[in-house]
Amino acid sequence: MDPDEFRRAGHAVIDWIADYWATLEQRPVAPADPPGTVAAALPASPPTACEPVEAVLADLDAIVVPGLTHWQHPGFFGYFPANTSGPSLLGDLVSSGLGVQGMLWASSPACTELETVMMDWLAQLLDLPQRFRSSGSGGGVIQDSASSATLVATLAALHRASGGRWRDAGIDRRYRAYTSVHGHSSIEKAVRITGLGSDGVRPIEADPETLALRPAALRAAIEADLAAGEIPAIVVATIGTTSTTAIDPLPEIGAICAEYGIWLHVDAAYAGAAAVCPELRWSHAGLEYADSYCFDPHKWLLTGFDCDAFWVADRGELVEALTVLPEFLRNAASESGAVIDYRDWQVPLGRRFRALKLWFVLRWYGAEGLRAHIRSGVALAARFADRVRADGRFELAAAHPFSLVCFRLHADDDTNAELLARVNGTGRVHLTHTRVAGRYTLRLAVGSPQTAERHVDEAWELLTAAADNLLRP
Amino acid sequence: MDPDEFRRAGHAVIDWIADYWATLEQRPVAPADPPGTVAAALPASPPTACEPVEAVLADLDAIVVPGLTHWQHPGFFGYFPANTSGPSLLGDLVSSGLGVQGMLWASSPACTELETVMMDWLAQLLDLPQRFRSSGSGGGVIQDSASSATLVATLAALHRASGGRWRDAGIDRRYRAYTSVHGHSSIEKAVRITGLGSDGVRPIEADPETLALRPAALRAAIEADLAAGEIPAIVVATIGTTSTTAIDPLPEIGAICAEYGIWLHVDAAYAGAAAVCPELRWSHAGLEYADSYCFDPHKWLLTGFDCDAFWVADRGELVEALTVLPEFLRNAASESGAVIDYRDWQVPLGRRFRALKLWFVLRWYGAEGLRAHIRSGVALAARFADRVRADGRFELAAAHPFSLVCFRLHADDDTNAELLARVNGTGRVHLTHTRVAGRYTLRLAVGSPQTAERHVDEAWELLTAAADNLLRP
Repeated sequence: MDPDEFRRAGHAVIDWIADYWATLEQRPVAPADPPGTVAAALPASPPTACEPVEAVLADLDAIVVPGLTHWQHPGFFGYFPANTSGPSLLGDLVSSGLGVQGMLWASSPACTELETVMMDWLAQLLDLPQRFRSSGSGGGVIQDSASSATLVATLAALHRASGGRWRDAGIDRRYRAYTSVHGHSSIEKAVRITGLGSDGVRPIEADPETLALRPAALRAAIEADLAAGEIPAIVVATIGTTSTTAIDPLPEIGAICAEYGIWLHVDAAYAGAAAVCPELRWSHAGLEYADSYCFDPHKWLLTGFDCDAFWVADRGELVEALTVLPEFLRNAASESGAVIDYRDWQVPLGRRFRALKLWFVLRWYGAEGLRAHIRSGVALAARFADRVRADGRFELAAAHPFSLVCFRLHADDDTNAELLARVNGTGRVHLTHTRVAGRYTLRLAVGSPQTAERHVDEAWELLTAAADNLLRP
Repeated sequence: MDPDEFRRAGHAVIDWIADYWATLEQRPVAPADPPGTVAAALPASPPTACEPVEAVLADLDAIVVPGLTHWQHPGFFGYFPANTSGPSLLGDLVSSGLGVQGMLWASSPACTELETVMMDWLAQLLDLPQRFRSSGSGGGVIQDSASSATLVATLAALHRASGGRWRDAGIDRRYRAYTSVHGHSSIEKAVRITGLGSDGVRPIEADPETLALRPAALRAAIEADLAAGEIPAIVVATIGTTSTTAIDPLPEIGAICAEYGIWLHVDAAYAGAAAVCPELRWSHAGLEYADSYCFDPHKWLLTGFDCDAFWVADRGELVEALTVLPEFLRNAASESGAVIDYRDWQVPLGRRFRALKLWFVLRWYGAEGLRAHIRSGVALAARFADRVRADGRFELAAAHPFSLVCFRLHADDDTNAELLARVNGTGRVHLTHTRVAGRYTLRLAVGSPQTAERHVDEAWELLTAAADNLLRP
């Protein structure tokens, strides 16, 4: 495909996306087709000869799009949102067009340097502690996801806990990781991957009201492990748990980690973005205790997946844990010690130029635009929560400090599951569920920049209409 | 950014990329600026208010592009190539525009189903063994990189070797991994991550002529470990090593793995793409022994990073090793067992719709177009190798079955390093180096679809001119 063919086809694809966004609201949020529908409509074998882009776009419309759940739809309220934006697409498109590799500083210097600057910009936007800035001993890097950030933090913690012996000699299975019972599943996955097994995670009791980790229970677990000859290596605290956006008390947890010399990783995958608003920074109190921290601009900061922003207070420790240096990667810049080689900050070797999408997003929106987006989400969630609160048949299952509302009917689990199935079945909205205190609970998470009051109001109308039917005697 | 603003700015970015590609050849392949140049030209803080896309594109031209090593440049011969193409960009752009998450089948069904079909298409294109196809017990998945594929394969191997105990109880440090001394650094990294430590890797001697793993040495290492009470868990064999594209003898290695019940992972990150050509499939002889296999369409198959194609012969085993199921991801489709949830095939939870770029590439080029691309690279490398062979001052350091040529001057290491620095200093080409049998060796890897005979000839002219100067008495 030569540059002129690309130009022509590229304009067509840009138009296709603009039209998709403009018509998104008219589509069902999620498909109703059974498994295998899309696969069955595709040829079983690849073509032998060249096919034009138009043919692919036609099949995109006919086969693929009808089989999608539309995460950018204004009625999408599932999981945590993963919203993107025009500037993010454009930045990522430039990254694709440049097609450079930023594994080493030397392999394409601007790729590394823009990333370092963008991570410092983000640190300023969130008012993160100075220890995470690249001007000191810390620094930030883009990971694909918070799962990978947790894995990398765990590896660095094990390296530190072992006095560096872990790297060559392997893991001591007595190491233990601690997180709230509401910590994300990626914590168990990370700990399993590092060789501690799922049993290496100590799930710590949460307060039944706030759903936040109980520091006293954490201390008790640490003491019990120490008494049993186990070695506490890492605590993963969460700002904005996946089920309910509960906030673990970092000041108390951090003090415990400091006392026992345990690595503190703070996972703010979803809620970290809220810290761009000064009035929401209370959620990050105590972050100065953290050894590492991450949040996902690809969740609530208008940046397309994949973009997890991960910081460490001591970049030297991280690099020492992960580096392997084969001859074919040796170069004068790396050996000078004057540059960052981000390959040593992550699991993969290769890395695309993801800082570009952040650059486009941060400049297009500016700090003010980002704050407006977060405030809109918080206000829409509050508006929805007010509806729930005002209807005696419903109850809120948890606080809603950010843009997620957890709620349920005063009814049994099956009735609540049926309520979810019915509103999702309308194709107008898509919500997901969790369990709070063992009880089936619906989740409504606002995130799309297209979501306005009328979409949240429609969700509520659909819910109450379904409830009317379900609760009819 | 509303759809119409996006349309306008999107056309501008498409044009920017088309112009970049059209003028790529006129740019220096790599920058000469010292570390910090790009960072110093960027503002220290993010903007408060919105800035237009035009301002960002202007800074892209003024600040970022001059600081890049241009991996898509026709004179880029470094590392392994990581070439993209117009259709890959367009497919990835659609993926960005849709912004869906394919972590579960239920989270956006077409995302999973298109990926399964594309992996089966690729398996047909490469004529991979039936055991990797989704119609049987196997299946394919897109990973970000071969590093992650190696990690995931190692985890599945440990799960199998432990009879499933690894998952909860953690790793037995007696497990051992085996790879050639020329195996990629990501193997040591993966083994370290799993908790075996770098000492868990047994580097196996290679044949001094073919640079391929010596099966007898592998068997001896396994026997020695067994005698010492260690437990052989995985062998990673390579088709196309990073230094020289050596090919480990899979038929012999596979038979050893079968005899001892050891997981065989085959890393064909770069050279796997060659198997789209029937005349190059000899390189994959013995692949029927493999438990897992990967190659990178993002290296030599015109697909943008990140796109590693990874297959397993037993998908159930892989899922069992990696799954963790929190309530908020439970859904009827997963529980039916009738769908694939790719989150359980990888380290991260989230995943973007990467199958789209493969779909666009495979349809635009067709099998014939892909074969033509591979054949062009092989022919250009052979052309360059002929030049080396014909000049008595130079020697080939290894065979060149694919599109990489390893060569050096009959001179000491410093002279060869100086030769590399001088040709790269012209800004017309970019080569990297390795060591073969301990000696400094230059690598010229052909990959860009823009690279033609004249670019390879120019590289040779620059090398001989530099050699003239260097060898002058």
